[in-house]
Amino acid sequence: MDNRQVVLAARPTGLIDESTTAVVVAPRLECDKGEALIKVAMLSIDPTIRGWMDDAPGYLPPIEIGAPIRGAGVGVVVESKSDRYDVGDMVYGFTNWQEWVIASEENRFSVIPRGLGLDLATVMNVLGVTGITAYIGLTEIGRLRDGDVVVVSGAAGATGSAAGQIARARGAAKVVGIAGGPQKCQEVVELYGFDDCLDYRAPALARRLREACPDGVDVFFDNVGGEILDVVLTALAMHARIVLCGAISEYNLTERAKGLANTRMMIARRARMEGFIVLDYANRYAEVQGELAAMVMSGRLQHREHVVEGLEHAPDALNQLFRGVNHGKTLVVVDGQITLD
Amino acid sequence: MDNRQVVLAARPTGLIDESTTAVVVAPRLECDKGEALIKVAMLSIDPTIRGWMDDAPGYLPPIEIGAPIRGAGVGVVVESKSDRYDVGDMVYGFTNWQEWVIASEENRFSVIPRGLGLDLATVMNVLGVTGITAYIGLTEIGRLRDGDVVVVSGAAGATGSAAGQIARARGAAKVVGIAGGPQKCQEVVELYGFDDCLDYRAPALARRLREACPDGVDVFFDNVGGEILDVVLTALAMHARIVLCGAISEYNLTERAKGLANTRMMIARRARMEGFIVLDYANRYAEVQGELAAMVMSGRLQHREHVVEGLEHAPDALNQLFRGVNHGKTLVVVDGQITLD
Repeated sequence: MDNRQVVLAARPTGLIDESTTAVVVAPRLECDKGEALIKVAMLSIDPTIRGWMDDAPGYLPPIEIGAPIRGAGVGVVVESKSDRYDVGDMVYGFTNWQEWVIASEENRFSVIPRGLGLDLATVMNVLGVTGITAYIGLTEIGRLRDGDVVVVSGAAGATGSAAGQIARARGAAKVVGIAGGPQKCQEVVELYGFDDCLDYRAPALARRLREACPDGVDVFFDNVGGEILDVVLTALAMHARIVLCGAISEYNLTERAKGLANTRMMIARRARMEGFIVLDYANRYAEVQGELAAMVMSGRLQHREHVVEGLEHAPDALNQLFRGVNHGKTLVVVDGQITLD
Repeated sequence: MDNRQVVLAARPTGLIDESTTAVVVAPRLECDKGEALIKVAMLSIDPTIRGWMDDAPGYLPPIEIGAPIRGAGVGVVVESKSDRYDVGDMVYGFTNWQEWVIASEENRFSVIPRGLGLDLATVMNVLGVTGITAYIGLTEIGRLRDGDVVVVSGAAGATGSAAGQIARARGAAKVVGIAGGPQKCQEVVELYGFDDCLDYRAPALARRLREACPDGVDVFFDNVGGEILDVVLTALAMHARIVLCGAISEYNLTERAKGLANTRMMIARRARMEGFIVLDYANRYAEVQGELAAMVMSGRLQHREHVVEGLEHAPDALNQLFRGVNHGKTLVVVDGQITLD
C-alpha cells in the first residue's frame, strides 16, 4: 500500500528527460472524514501537463518540485468516509501520476456511470476532457453554424479528431484537417471522415489551404499554434472564429517563438480569436458527455487510443505527444486489473 | 472646374514617396440623374489608407493605379439631381483625394447636421470615423464593463485619445495609455485625462505595464499591433478582450513582421482578440454621433487636430502618421472657404 509516484525532479527546458522526473515511493495515504481513498487505474496524458511543469503563469499554478506530476485520470474508490463516493465507484479527476490518491473537498472527482457498454480507455478519451474540450471549443468558442467550413489542426490527435467529427455531426459543410505526414493525413480522412487533410510538412501549406477552402475558413480549431496558426490567418472567411485550444508547437520551445505575423488579417476579416480552458465548463460536463456518448454508440465518433503500460512510462508517453509519433489519445495504465464492467 | 486629384502612381514599398503619388488634373465632373456634385472641403487622413495602396487582400479592394487615393472627407453639395441631397448640404463620405466628387447610388454620403456649434475639423475628428471607431471598438468589440482596467495603444493619436476618454466616461476604473516619447505621454495624461501613460520607447515596457495594471488588463484597445500587442498579451486579466483596431506598426513593413510570440497566454487567460471595421456599423453612426457630440459639448471628450493646408500635401500628411510626429487627428484642407456655419 505504499504509493509509487512520478514526481517533478527539476524544471525542464524543452522536452522532459531522465533528470526532469523521478519515480519515488511515498508513504501510504490515509483517508480522513469527508474523504475517499482511490486506487488509480489509468492516466490521461495531455499536452497541457508539459505547461504545468514550467515556472510560468498559467491557468493552474506550476507543479511544485518534488510533487507528483499533475494530471487527470480514473480510479476506483476502495475506502470512503464521504457521502459523495461509494466503495467501488469509478471516478474521474486529478489523480496525478501515482498509484493512490485522496478525493477531498479540494480535489473532487466525478463518478463515471457504469453500463454504457464502453471500455475505460474510450470513456477516458471521448467522455473525458479530450472529447469535452472538442465539443465546448467548437460550439461555445467557435460558435459553429450550419454550413461552416471548419479547419482543425492536430487533426490526427485525440482532441482534433473529435473536433472534426463533432463539427461534421453538427452541420459543418466541410471539415479539413491539418496533420503531420501522409500516414496521419490518410487516417484523418479514412478513419475520422474529414473531407480533406493537409500535410503541414509538405510545401505550400498556405496555397493548399486556400485551394481546399476557396471561400475561406469559418472556424479554425487550433491545437498547434505557431506557424500553422499564422498560415490559417491568411485564409479566413469574414467573421471567422479561431478557437485557441492548445499550442503544442510552443510548449517545449527553448527560444522565443517565431510568432504570428498575420494577425492584421483579423481586422480585414472581422475575425475573432479566443482562448478557453475546459475546466471553466464543469457545469456542462454531464450534458456534453451525454451527447458524446450518443455519438460514440451510433458510430459517428471514431476514436483511437494509444495505451502505454506502467506508471513509470508516463514521462515517455508525454514526450511522445510532442514528437508527433502517437495516434489518438495517449493513456497510461497504472493498474490493469481495474475495469469499468 | 477642372478636378485636381492626387492619384496612385505606383504601389509603394514602405512609406510612400514622390514616385508613389502624382497630382493630376482630371476633366470636370458631370452630375447625372440621381447624383449630386460635391465640392470637397477637407480630407480625413487615416492610417488605413496606406493599406489600400497595397495589392493585397483587405476589407476594401486595392486602390487602382491611376485612380485618386481613396479616403473619407467632407464637402458641400453644389448641384443636386438626387432626392437625398440639397444644394448647400455639408456631406461626409468617400470624397477621395480630389477637389470634386460625385455622390451616387454606389458612393453615398451622409448629411452633417448644422447648428451643433462645432467646427468642421472637430466634426471630422470626433463625429467622423475616428470617434465612431473608438466608441464601437470599446463598447461592441471590447464589451467595456464598469470597473474595467483599459489600456490603449497609440494613445496620443486621434482614435486612441478618444478611446481612452470614452472608456473613462463609460465606467472604466483605470485608463492607461501607451505612446511614443515623453511629450506624447504627458499630453495623454494632461490633455486627455488618462490615469497613466507608458512610453514604449523607454526600457522594460512589460514590467511597467504590470506595475501600472497589477490586476491585469481587462480591455486592450490596440491601434499599433506588433511588439506592443505582444507585450500586452503578457499582462491580461482573466477574460480579457483585445480590440484590434489598427496595426500602424505594420502598414509600412518591407519585411516579415517579427510577430506575436505570446498568443498562448490567451488560452490561460481565456482571452478574446477581435478585429473589426467601423464601416460594418453604419446603421449605428447616428446614435453614436449623438453620444459623442454630447461628450464634446460637455467637455468630456478633448480632441486635437493637426490641419495641413493643400490637397497636394496629403501624401506627406499620410506619411507623418507613421513617423509618429503628429498629435491628434490629421486633416487636409482642400477648400478653406467651406465652413459648417
